[in-house]
Amino acid sequence: MNAPAALKIVAFENPLEALSKLLTNELAQTEIEISSHMVSAVGLIPDVAHHLVDAGGKRLRPLLTLAAAKICGNVTPAAIKLSAAVEFIHSATLLHDDVVDGSGLRRGQRTANLIWGDKASVLVGDFLFARAFNMMVATGSLRILDILAATSSTIAEGEVLQLASTSRGDSGRETYYKIISAKTAALFAAAAQSGAICAGANEELAAAFYQYGHQLGMAFQLSDDALDYGGLTQELGKRVGDDFREGKPTLPMIVAIERASDTEYSFWQMVLARKHEDEDLQTAMQYVRNCGAIEATLKEATERANSAKMALNKVADSDIKRCLIELADFVVNRVS
Amino acid sequence: MNAPAALKIVAFENPLEALSKLLTNELAQTEIEISSHMVSAVGLIPDVAHHLVDAGGKRLRPLLTLAAAKICGNVTPAAIKLSAAVEFIHSATLLHDDVVDGSGLRRGQRTANLIWGDKASVLVGDFLFARAFNMMVATGSLRILDILAATSSTIAEGEVLQLASTSRGDSGRETYYKIISAKTAALFAAAAQSGAICAGANEELAAAFYQYGHQLGMAFQLSDDALDYGGLTQELGKRVGDDFREGKPTLPMIVAIERASDTEYSFWQMVLARKHEDEDLQTAMQYVRNCGAIEATLKEATERANSAKMALNKVADSDIKRCLIELADFVVNRVS
Repeated sequence: MNAPAALKIVAFENPLEALSKLLTNELAQTEIEISSHMVSAVGLIPDVAHHLVDAGGKRLRPLLTLAAAKICGNVTPAAIKLSAAVEFIHSATLLHDDVVDGSGLRRGQRTANLIWGDKASVLVGDFLFARAFNMMVATGSLRILDILAATSSTIAEGEVLQLASTSRGDSGRETYYKIISAKTAALFAAAAQSGAICAGANEELAAAFYQYGHQLGMAFQLSDDALDYGGLTQELGKRVGDDFREGKPTLPMIVAIERASDTEYSFWQMVLARKHEDEDLQTAMQYVRNCGAIEATLKEATERANSAKMALNKVADSDIKRCLIELADFVVNRVS
Repeated sequence: MNAPAALKIVAFENPLEALSKLLTNELAQTEIEISSHMVSAVGLIPDVAHHLVDAGGKRLRPLLTLAAAKICGNVTPAAIKLSAAVEFIHSATLLHDDVVDGSGLRRGQRTANLIWGDKASVLVGDFLFARAFNMMVATGSLRILDILAATSSTIAEGEVLQLASTSRGDSGRETYYKIISAKTAALFAAAAQSGAICAGANEELAAAFYQYGHQLGMAFQLSDDALDYGGLTQELGKRVGDDFREGKPTLPMIVAIERASDTEYSFWQMVLARKHEDEDLQTAMQYVRNCGAIEATLKEATERANSAKMALNKVADSDIKRCLIELADFVVNRVS
């Protein structure tokens, strides 16, 4: 295979990169907006913020905002501000998540809380969240502020629900769906919907983008949760088991419990009742993988991805729309 | 002394209570607004939020909003929402502060982080902060959103500056004033200013209330910092030394360092360079109190209180204005 053909395949396999290319100019403006709002006379703030915001993020959520705006009209300065605000809200939740989960690694890099401590992560997270609102106010749209403020409440509610349900060992599906809908899908939905609104989309079109974002976010989180148990192929060297160690009952575990033999069921009850130990991970991985829970989780993810694609049915065809369609498959297929 | 006379003296000595009485109806509406926005299907949220919001708080900041609105016109539903939002921002920062400071007690009660853990405090703080923005959006005023979003950034910057300067043992006055201006006075200022704006105040009047709030907040924090070294009389049984233990160089310590003998200076340098020990507190208290640092701190507080009163010079006389004037003296005099 020669080099250009290989490049073409890479481009095809990664619609996120394709989307970034189609929105190169807009994304560059978003990056400027992001950088300019991390500036502070208090040096620790840009240190922590740059570490997180510069490190390996794919700008998935701002790209949803920009893509929706571009499809629905044009990408106004307000949409640029909005896309940066969405990334700041995401970054703030990551900083706080890592403190809450006691995480030491994110995207293969040491987390901010490991380098600068929990205190700095909590406070710089607060700063980014406040700055997100500064940027949203600058869009001049109360409608968009309303959507994003409500979304921020929902995200926090989802995080608290996850904390509470983890501590009481709640392994119900209903709770799980509520959690991932609030902590992940809500911001995807708001990012796409508010991008559309920024470009003057009517209610129906804005609702279509909301639905696309919501379903994409659900597919994304379901896939992520399958990946945490090794995905379909369990790549060598890839860190797995974070959710298990943190005691979060995600869908792979929930399915494994539903399908458990008596012995397996006793194991899971023991696991849910106490702090999870590293030595239990091998057993958990084996139970999850042998009962087909990965496949079941990915089946759900695929259904969500299909719903995401269907949500865009009435949207006129374009290169960007095709990327969004491929993106829905991509977030699931990256797991295999 | 008979009972009615005693009551009269109490009312005179505590202008905060007098203000609450003058604004009884408005404050009752604020309380309803506060309660209704703590509601969540996730039970941990109202548990943590009520613990903090119900416990001993004097609603000082919302009262500034209501008082400014009442003086400048009338207290609209938007002003009520705004006053509740201000209390939520304050509560969110308290939750995060207690995590960052590792505090176990606030207003004589166990802190939320001690009861429910740091994780719950971080996430419920995020929730309250997001809800504050929900309420502010409901005021329908981009101007007010702009002020409060900028104030929230400033508060977070102040907290990060305090964290960074504490860790490097920065005992400069300039840093100290920046910190208390950002973490305390900014919200007092915004609460009063935005209350005035809600009632249709012109720029000059809104600026007067901003200035009043800012100077009151500075006086409040300076007095608080003097109280943490026992105030003028060092009441028996009152917990002191939190700032010292947390290694925060507040004005009493800063003045003591400025006035230190060589021996004292060595002590302070040692103290600033490492984690502060309980056994050093007695020495620190002695040095601070003997050199007149409490009086120096209170002198600054008094000057700020006088500036606060002067800021209201052009405001027409009223019962509420008189309470605000007395309040400025009160925040300083409670220290003696």
